Amino acid sequence: MKTDDLIIKKRDNKELTKEEIDYLVQGYTKGDIPDYQISAFLMAAFLNGMTQVETANLTQSMVNSGETLDLSSISGIKVDKHSTGGVGDKTTLTLGPLVASAGLNVAKMSGRGLGHTGGTIDKLEAFQGLKIDLTMDDFVDRVNKHNIAIVGQTKDLAPADGKLYALRDVTGTVDSIPLIASSIMSKKLAAGTDAIVLDVKVGKGAFMQTLDDAIALGHEMVNIGDNLGRKTIAVISDMDQPLGKNVGNALEVIEAIDTLKGQGPKDFEDLCLHLGANLLLLGEKVETLQQGRNLLQQKITNGEALEKFEELIKVQNGDYRAIHDNSKLPTPKHSKTLKASTQGYISSLDARKVGLACVNLGAGRKTKEDEIDLSVGVELLKKTGDKVKKDEPIAKIWYNEEQKLNDALPVLDISYEISEQPTEDKHLIYGMITIESNPGELDPIN
Amino acid sequence: MKTDDLIIKKRDNKELTKEEIDYLVQGYTKGDIPDYQISAFLMAAFLNGMTQVETANLTQSMVNSGETLDLSSISGIKVDKHSTGGVGDKTTLTLGPLVASAGLNVAKMSGRGLGHTGGTIDKLEAFQGLKIDLTMDDFVDRVNKHNIAIVGQTKDLAPADGKLYALRDVTGTVDSIPLIASSIMSKKLAAGTDAIVLDVKVGKGAFMQTLDDAIALGHEMVNIGDNLGRKTIAVISDMDQPLGKNVGNALEVIEAIDTLKGQGPKDFEDLCLHLGANLLLLGEKVETLQQGRNLLQQKITNGEALEKFEELIKVQNGDYRAIHDNSKLPTPKHSKTLKASTQGYISSLDARKVGLACVNLGAGRKTKEDEIDLSVGVELLKKTGDKVKKDEPIAKIWYNEEQKLNDALPVLDISYEISEQPTEDKHLIYGMITIESNPGELDPIN
Repeated sequence: MKTDDLIIKKRDNKELTKEEIDYLVQGYTKGDIPDYQISAFLMAAFLNGMTQVETANLTQSMVNSGETLDLSSISGIKVDKHSTGGVGDKTTLTLGPLVASAGLNVAKMSGRGLGHTGGTIDKLEAFQGLKIDLTMDDFVDRVNKHNIAIVGQTKDLAPADGKLYALRDVTGTVDSIPLIASSIMSKKLAAGTDAIVLDVKVGKGAFMQTLDDAIALGHEMVNIGDNLGRKTIAVISDMDQPLGKNVGNALEVIEAIDTLKGQGPKDFEDLCLHLGANLLLLGEKVETLQQGRNLLQQKITNGEALEKFEELIKVQNGDYRAIHDNSKLPTPKHSKTLKASTQGYISSLDARKVGLACVNLGAGRKTKEDEIDLSVGVELLKKTGDKVKKDEPIAKIWYNEEQKLNDALPVLDISYEISEQPTEDKHLIYGMITIESNPGELDPIN
Repeated sequence: MKTDDLIIKKRDNKELTKEEIDYLVQGYTKGDIPDYQISAFLMAAFLNGMTQVETANLTQSMVNSGETLDLSSISGIKVDKHSTGGVGDKTTLTLGPLVASAGLNVAKMSGRGLGHTGGTIDKLEAFQGLKIDLTMDDFVDRVNKHNIAIVGQTKDLAPADGKLYALRDVTGTVDSIPLIASSIMSKKLAAGTDAIVLDVKVGKGAFMQTLDDAIALGHEMVNIGDNLGRKTIAVISDMDQPLGKNVGNALEVIEAIDTLKGQGPKDFEDLCLHLGANLLLLGEKVETLQQGRNLLQQKITNGEALEKFEELIKVQNGDYRAIHDNSKLPTPKHSKTLKASTQGYISSLDARKVGLACVNLGAGRKTKEDEIDLSVGVELLKKTGDKVKKDEPIAKIWYNEEQKLNDALPVLDISYEISEQPTEDKHLIYGMITIESNPGELDPIN
């Protein structure tokens, strides 16, 4: 095989075989094929697209480029949840203990935040002493004993994806549905679970800006999962405005705890229950989504969900007392209230801008190397659709440094738009995609 | 400006500005922009195409990437001829002296052969002692005194083109009409002439395999020339079979001399007269093509064309006695006759295969570093359309080493196809393209 022949084949819109894709991916990962050939290939794949079979083969080849987790010693069906990323998305913190308390095994690998989006590992580190770098044996062991463990993403999973992503980032080849889908799915598949629930975010704060793109990405990922023998479903959910009310690491932990107590924001609780019910269904713990929702509701009401969270933090060496005493979490020194400039209805609350305001506060990273301040963030007192009076508080900013407040305040201010007339009710969950869904379409949630 | 933004602009099929193209070309030439970004850009340009304005700007930017020749001290209109390359194409050797003898100044920069195609500089070196590495001052001086000088291509002309071509060669982005056209034209424009006659070859031995592609390339180059203020015309001529009868360096010199005496093969003489008449017209030496043909015919008949050739060789220190005594050219030791395997008509004589047979004989280079044998080659006794009897000689191979003959003979043998029925007459010149020609169309030669 010759690399330039394979580039030409893709350029001429012919389907590459499994072996040909493998030749490119493994050759590139090993350093045998130079960047400049792969970037030409990626642009050809971007412009000509890839077939479902090519995309599945690309994903499998990226999985094969490194280690994979062996979760076979964990009993039962291992189910994973993945969000394509957003602002205020503390779902894993609530959902993990919630479904674990219902008997599902949660072996979760999570990442850190970058840019306007946050990451689960950063949020968990708000618990003093918490360890996220478990050995594989410890990880599996804890899941078997406690139904749940969360570790940081190790570098050796799907290294081809990391290398390809870095190249795509500088060659204008990021925004390709097959390439995005295979990138996400390669890491999920390498993480060794049997079934996957995808939370595809759409809107201003998400990677996918339009519903059509989100649906296309959802279908592509569900197809990859199906092609490679993993049950996969996708939920499309809103990220036009942030999820829940709190954005910022310790603040999001507090909201996650509130939700496990049944006292969280309605939108966030709804999403956790829907994703959780799907996880239980794929994990064969229930027979219908409604059964799943009922079971989870019960675990919240009887306190077992919160107990499971406490167990998780305790076992990973975190200061679990913070669950009942928020002052033991990183706490910001000051707060400042943002007031409505006029009366009316919140017509828009831009998740991306809220995320960037939090980065300016120090809660997020501009580059991978940045240190973050776990205590700071934003509390959104009003969200899209809410009625406000002039000068009524609409958000509270928690901060430590005056300068950073000054950097964040104007960005938060323009995140809000107020109109005279009430706006249409926002969807939280747009619908679902399974392997049976019609291409380009969504199934309703029931 | 950011490189990836420009890649994305081309990827999204938007027209790049002159400044944006310049940023890419100059940045790449200086090494500020890495290969992997330019290869992604080239693939996007390959698949989305480039507008005429973009292609002209790319060409101009490649010209600007290095030195340009200043021919302003040569009086009159400077006209250049360029062939896209073929087998047996000794046109410059005959055409240069021919039009110079008619008073046109010929300041010609030529190249060497590679692969199955030959190069003028190699052929000229069949004259012992001939110097092709003149200084610019000597070059201009000789044109002013003798109407003609030929030098080897210096490295500093359009260095961006060399760098881009090397990258295209390994990234599946060679066969793009705008990229090919700008590559050729950048070197022509850097060579400083006012008007250009392009000989676009089409057929088995040419870069362009189909008439449509050749026409498209011709139009693209004529448009570039027009956009950048140089009068440019293109002639589309056949390279399905080799041009003339002799292939191989010294052998082609002999045929070029014969043609200057009026004793050359008809096809080759026709092409020289047609290209020459166009050169004279662009150089404002005549008012019609017919006048040009008549003038050139006269220069052949009265011996002035041959005298001019002698003057050229003499002034560049070559052993000009070889013009009248071919034994002073490199001479092969042996010859071998190829005979017709059956009676019938030559239905095809594959120029590419003949060229490769000559490479096997040692007359051409497989890689740029190869030494070549100037004496060896092939004499095509029969060409397409000719009637042959069984065992009648159809070609003569001139060689020095038995092993190389054995490598060449089977390739030459399969170059010929013989059919029972006579074949259609082959076109030599398909037509012409000027800036007034309709897109995608050819004008007839008159």
